[in-house]
Amino acid sequence: MVQVEQDIMSANQRHADVNRRVFAGRGIFVINLVSSPGSGKTTLLVKTIEALKGEFPIGVIEGDQQTGLDADRIAATGAPAYQINTGKGCHLDAHGVGHALEHLPDLRGGLLFIENVGNLVCPAGFDLGEAHKVVVLSTTEGEDKPLKYPDMFYASDLMLLNKADLLPYLDFSVETAQGFARQVHPGMECLTLSARSGEGMEAWLEWLRQGVTAASATAKPKVLLSEGT
Amino acid sequence: MVQVEQDIMSANQRHADVNRRVFAGRGIFVINLVSSPGSGKTTLLVKTIEALKGEFPIGVIEGDQQTGLDADRIAATGAPAYQINTGKGCHLDAHGVGHALEHLPDLRGGLLFIENVGNLVCPAGFDLGEAHKVVVLSTTEGEDKPLKYPDMFYASDLMLLNKADLLPYLDFSVETAQGFARQVHPGMECLTLSARSGEGMEAWLEWLRQGVTAASATAKPKVLLSEGT
Repeated sequence: MVQVEQDIMSANQRHADVNRRVFAGRGIFVINLVSSPGSGKTTLLVKTIEALKGEFPIGVIEGDQQTGLDADRIAATGAPAYQINTGKGCHLDAHGVGHALEHLPDLRGGLLFIENVGNLVCPAGFDLGEAHKVVVLSTTEGEDKPLKYPDMFYASDLMLLNKADLLPYLDFSVETAQGFARQVHPGMECLTLSARSGEGMEAWLEWLRQGVTAASATAKPKVLLSEGT
Repeated sequence: MVQVEQDIMSANQRHADVNRRVFAGRGIFVINLVSSPGSGKTTLLVKTIEALKGEFPIGVIEGDQQTGLDADRIAATGAPAYQINTGKGCHLDAHGVGHALEHLPDLRGGLLFIENVGNLVCPAGFDLGEAHKVVVLSTTEGEDKPLKYPDMFYASDLMLLNKADLLPYLDFSVETAQGFARQVHPGMECLTLSARSGEGMEAWLEWLRQGVTAASATAKPKVLLSEGT
């Protein structure tokens, strides 16, 4: 059993390493968006894409057990989106992401979002080749989630506290939640926002712009890439 | 790989069958409570136990990746609670539940809640020996979750729409969510409530009382049990 798990993880890591080289070669900033179901990842992506549209290419890989609902919502923004249905599966893997890339246009110098299956456990262990995991925690979920699902908050470099517009109606302390996140992941970056109302979005957009700028600086010229690899 | 999965599932099923015989012999009504992280399962349990206390024995098995926070909250009600930490694991299994029973007092003729790890994917496939899976969907998670995580809504006999007190502040239609749930699980029972405000709780309490009455009718006399098994 342990051997099977090791084989799966090492195969995933090989595919993730390939993905990461592809992303680096094309200078694409890649975000693996993870959270519970219903934290508002897709709404956040829609608002993010609408705000950044025209600045650089943006594409989305959507993961869900079933339905193409999320890819449809993304496609309505005009951004290319490809949906992976995992069926019984509880997370995306690097192999599937590699194949999904074949269905998206060239995002050279741009931004790729991978919206993982809503699940605070399993996606934590699977590298997809992304630059960062970003964990979205909704204010409605309670402050204790970083302590109860520490692997995910340890694996993520940024926590977005979403649904800030509901704070007046909840018993939720932003400071407590951020404190718990930094207890499992010291120094973790935290931003508070509401994709629905727009409050706090600018800091997130700026974080993304800086990542895209840094990633695009490493892109190889297209002609070299097609010859070399 | 398929063989390993089959072995795990059939071992789990054997343990679940044993649990189910133990529960039937003692006449315990057992609920496996499943949901996303942060849907309010523990708050619901606390309010439910407070309302039913004194009517019959109640115990709780708590599942989380880490921390004993939930068991502490349950213990504060006076009900016995045992916490299972799954570590890297993403769901409870029947073997662990069987051992957890050894840490709880005799709940003969009463009610056992198993609060699963917050995860709308993996716990769907694991029978713990319960009478019913009950899925809690928070109004803040959006109406589309039954379509996106169909296995869980198909596996559950009752959907509790929790956090009804937030409905005035959300874009959420109870009818749409219930329609989606019944699309994947025709005839599914649905109740709408707020554990926080108390609205809608009475129908849920009555549903539990009926289950306890039915389950306790099948209990074998204690003396026969200890001789026979």
